[in-house]
Amino acid sequence: MKLNNQYLADAIEECRPFAAEGAVNKDIPRLEQSSQNHIGVIAITTENKIYHAGDWKYTTSFQSCSKMISLMLALQDFGKERVFQTVGMEPMDDPFNSISHLENFEDHRPLNPMINSGAIAVASLIKGHSVSHRFERILELLRKITKNNELKMNEEVYESEKRRGSRNRSLAYFMKSNGTLVTDVDEALDLYFRINSIDVHCEDLARIGLFFANGGKLPEDGDKLISARHLRTIQAIMMTSGMYNESGQYAVEVGFPCKSGVSGIITGAVPNKMGIGIVGPAINKRGNSTAGGALLRKMSRDLRLNMFGNNLLLEKETNH
Amino acid sequence: MKLNNQYLADAIEECRPFAAEGAVNKDIPRLEQSSQNHIGVIAITTENKIYHAGDWKYTTSFQSCSKMISLMLALQDFGKERVFQTVGMEPMDDPFNSISHLENFEDHRPLNPMINSGAIAVASLIKGHSVSHRFERILELLRKITKNNELKMNEEVYESEKRRGSRNRSLAYFMKSNGTLVTDVDEALDLYFRINSIDVHCEDLARIGLFFANGGKLPEDGDKLISARHLRTIQAIMMTSGMYNESGQYAVEVGFPCKSGVSGIITGAVPNKMGIGIVGPAINKRGNSTAGGALLRKMSRDLRLNMFGNNLLLEKETNH
Amino acid sequence: MKLNNQYLADAIEECRPFAAEGAVNKDIPRLEQSSQNHIGVIAITTENKIYHAGDWKYTTSFQSCSKMISLMLALQDFGKERVFQTVGMEPMDDPFNSISHLENFEDHRPLNPMINSGAIAVASLIKGHSVSHRFERILELLRKITKNNELKMNEEVYESEKRRGSRNRSLAYFMKSNGTLVTDVDEALDLYFRINSIDVHCEDLARIGLFFANGGKLPEDGDKLISARHLRTIQAIMMTSGMYNESGQYAVEVGFPCKSGVSGIITGAVPNKMGIGIVGPAINKRGNSTAGGALLRKMSRDLRLNMFGNNLLLEKETNH
Amino acid sequence: MKLNNQYLADAIEECRPFAAEGAVNKDIPRLEQSSQNHIGVIAITTENKIYHAGDWKYTTSFQSCSKMISLMLALQDFGKERVFQTVGMEPMDDPFNSISHLENFEDHRPLNPMINSGAIAVASLIKGHSVSHRFERILELLRKITKNNELKMNEEVYESEKRRGSRNRSLAYFMKSNGTLVTDVDEALDLYFRINSIDVHCEDLARIGLFFANGGKLPEDGDKLISARHLRTIQAIMMTSGMYNESGQYAVEVGFPCKSGVSGIITGAVPNKMGIGIVGPAINKRGNSTAGGALLRKMSRDLRLNMFGNNLLLEKETNH
Repeated sequence: MKLNNQYLADAIEECRPFAAEGAVNKDIPRLEQSSQNHIGVIAITTENKIYHAGDWKYTTSFQSCSKMISLMLALQDFGKERVFQTVGMEPMDDPFNSISHLENFEDHRPLNPMINSGAIAVASLIKGHSVSHRFERILELLRKITKNNELKMNEEVYESEKRRGSRNRSLAYFMKSNGTLVTDVDEALDLYFRINSIDVHCEDLARIGLFFANGGKLPEDGDKLISARHLRTIQAIMMTSGMYNESGQYAVEVGFPCKSGVSGIITGAVPNKMGIGIVGPAINKRGNSTAGGALLRKMSRDLRLNMFGNNLLLEKETNH
Repeated sequence: MKLNNQYLADAIEECRPFAAEGAVNKDIPRLEQSSQNHIGVIAITTENKIYHAGDWKYTTSFQSCSKMISLMLALQDFGKERVFQTVGMEPMDDPFNSISHLENFEDHRPLNPMINSGAIAVASLIKGHSVSHRFERILELLRKITKNNELKMNEEVYESEKRRGSRNRSLAYFMKSNGTLVTDVDEALDLYFRINSIDVHCEDLARIGLFFANGGKLPEDGDKLISARHLRTIQAIMMTSGMYNESGQYAVEVGFPCKSGVSGIITGAVPNKMGIGIVGPAINKRGNSTAGGALLRKMSRDLRLNMFGNNLLLEKETNH
Repeated sequence: MKLNNQYLADAIEECRPFAAEGAVNKDIPRLEQSSQNHIGVIAITTENKIYHAGDWKYTTSFQSCSKMISLMLALQDFGKERVFQTVGMEPMDDPFNSISHLENFEDHRPLNPMINSGAIAVASLIKGHSVSHRFERILELLRKITKNNELKMNEEVYESEKRRGSRNRSLAYFMKSNGTLVTDVDEALDLYFRINSIDVHCEDLARIGLFFANGGKLPEDGDKLISARHLRTIQAIMMTSGMYNESGQYAVEVGFPCKSGVSGIITGAVPNKMGIGIVGPAINKRGNSTAGGALLRKMSRDLRLNMFGNNLLLEKETNH
Repeated sequence: MKLNNQYLADAIEECRPFAAEGAVNKDIPRLEQSSQNHIGVIAITTENKIYHAGDWKYTTSFQSCSKMISLMLALQDFGKERVFQTVGMEPMDDPFNSISHLENFEDHRPLNPMINSGAIAVASLIKGHSVSHRFERILELLRKITKNNELKMNEEVYESEKRRGSRNRSLAYFMKSNGTLVTDVDEALDLYFRINSIDVHCEDLARIGLFFANGGKLPEDGDKLISARHLRTIQAIMMTSGMYNESGQYAVEVGFPCKSGVSGIITGAVPNKMGIGIVGPAINKRGNSTAGGALLRKMSRDLRLNMFGNNLLLEKETNH
């Protein structure tokens, strides 16, 4: 198969029925108005060719897809050693907002930066003289990566995050009580809520994936924003933990680094090939877009994107 | 850096001191006699060139490195769908012999085939008219992959496995009680113990890795033993779960599919490049060879084997 | 209210409808034939007066009501210190057949002798030169307490316990693996299954309760079979752990030591007053007879049997 | 043995060495200054006779001994049914400040009112038009029970509770997130911290115990402050859950309702006989006074206070 708009349009229609297996997260403002059946995709290749299909014009909430951006900035600010003293890098077998691991594991750290506890801890590390300043630094990095200078926080979503934030507050105070969080809890959460509340377009998600796929360079100008070592770290963690407690299944079925958000979005990074952005608001119980997941699996198979199958490119396969 | 015997010899000596951070598993017969400081490696490229250094002549116990061979045969016998009705494919955040997940998770299945519970369940699926027959099928596959017709079970280790097998019996009976294990418990365990008790040479481990790295073909004759789809599945699971509850860290620091055993061995598969076999009996609390892990990390960095960094091959890196 | 046959008959009919909230345990032979709506009671006072009502003629399986008899014999054989090195005395908040506590708690002991793990460990302590001998000692003690020389094991139930015993085998092998169980696993389980398979009559259960209520003496002849200290220990453990993970509720609502079995039976010991035996095969999800529990609550209120309310005997209460 | 000042003085000196097995909780202001070896007791009989020995003049922090007063007021305000919709009545096998049960148990309620989560939830139920008003109602009830009109909150302790309150905030926000806590989190915690920060004298603790022991009446004037039904409920919960995750052991070794606080205090209620107040700041890892626990065990044996042994009062026992 070959990547082009028609291929994507056909793929979208094949995968749209999977939306019926999920449900839109009604807690996120405006998402409730979006159709259960929305599904859109944008893919941008390392040659900077852009393809799209379906409901790709859709703008939605950044949510957990922000977790890799926070991690990127924290790694730049403090280096790998310091960041992973605060947070682990092992997959968690519990849901993304679980708190039991903080109590039951010997070192009481968040298991990894892709779950809520870990992302709050990572956000607390980002340098800046105020929450606003730290948030501006996130926005600045994100605007460079996405080439979208319009990116900003959605106030309505932010207010909602704060209002509905009890579970995340519980995680943060637990980490405060055991010394994982050394900063002010309210400030750490405020930054976390702001980052989650950024409005993103499907193309932004594709460009984030592309940034990883292209080794941290922006295709056009070759500007290098982050060291290759940190990019490898983040991609490996996306592979083992990026899709909540379905990450193992995505490693098998999709086979390249992805990160999802409960707004139904997914960012995928296919090394040396392309970045993929998907919006599909109907999510399953584990927090992943049902139609979006189906689309990623199909694209991985059809376009031979699975990293564990790179060695098989010339082989005839009939047994998918 | 370039892979050759001298490189490996230097790397071995650099990593040997890490053995002091581990301890030899005294429960496995004859391992107790092996030196705490043993560390050996064999790497075989897809061009069938072989390199070695250190205590590579060492023969030891297959243990958990067998888990991917059992999975391979079960996938061939029953296909992916049936196998993954019995066992999951999500990483576990508890130690490899943990039982709590069987009780606490909603579907009561083993989380994945790389942990003890999952490997017992997978072994129970392998076809055959008797335990001996099923074990012969494992041996036959393994002999083809390793080109080592001498491979056989070590009786002393087998007796020890049976005698010390209470924890695995506990796992098996739990799975019997909840319907995961539908076969006879004693037979399932007998096969599991036999497979773990195969004597393997460092070269065997390298050839297993090579088999995966080469897309399931034996380099010399191109004989295809298993479908590419199953190989992808196994490698993805090795990446997310192959190194016990340090798998996340290995994905970051090593970045290619590996599988360890508590005898201190590791098999690594570097897609399109090479298979790696390591013996280093001193293991850490999580079950992985301390010197062997250090060696893998070093080889991944020096030889640019990290799959998440393939796109960076031409880049100058100073910041490891 | 005053205890007599008419009171009990009225109480039975008032509580019988609660049977509809439970279900008969179909795994225990012959229980499946018993009516969902069976409910019977026998109460024997310390003056040796006997009252009964409902389906009291019913003979059924001893099951977990045996746990206090095993504990009694182990305490006599080894003393308190030794027994509680093997098993704890803290209530468990998980179901009676849970295994996670053995893995997750620091000392890996069963939490108490009233749960399956604890009872298997306690049974393994009972002295004797064979399983048969040890079982005979249990029977002998039980026959003295119940004055029922006909008491014996039901072969059909025993075969069923062995056949369906995988969960208990899992518990036993786990305890073998961590050193809690030092005897042969099969022998420990064999004894445990035999004790559970004794056929008991409602009157036997009442006499066991009476034995505790009367300070370890048989009312008629004053024969003292066990030290007061051990009796106190067992009753306190029945109060905190005797009714599975509803024990807290029974302490509040009933307020005297009770022990239940999944055959729907309950033994109650009202200090200085009476022993109560109840048969009511429909059990709830936690393993307790629904109609039997309702009857105990009613008797406790009407007859002022709650130990935490002994001081209120002369007070007029209208606000139950 | 007979209760009098000399008996208590001898008992205190026998038990004082157990203080060496514990440590003073340095987080509570002024406790750090108190001697590791302090141990004092006051016992007041239902005939209103008062006995004391050791460091009984000591004033300290109410801490978890407040949990039964909050429960008392909540039961009066809302009745049993409503209170136990919010909180369970089953013992917890984890430490008193554990959060995992809120995540892992099916109904996500606190397991009982004697653990931190449960006590916060119960405090949130207490009626009043402001935190101050609700706290005044607690103080008013407590002053009546203790006949101590001087009782008030210690500002220094209160400030410390608020400052060090992250773990309790984590519990409260978790309960807010799952709907257990329907009130404002800050207000619920503020009230909880205030109640914990009341300065209590050893005599106050004894009078609280006496209040329960005497059926809810004040010995001198017979004023009835709470229904007998609620008193029974609270005492049963103290028996199964009052001493954190050593409650099972206290039921066996002491055998009457007790409640401890991490300031090293214990309140004991011996039905129809006496109330006991103990101060002994050195606590063990589970939160209970080590010397205080030894003293309770000794008094229970010597003075035959064990409720499970009431029936044995006339019996000669040599085998403690």
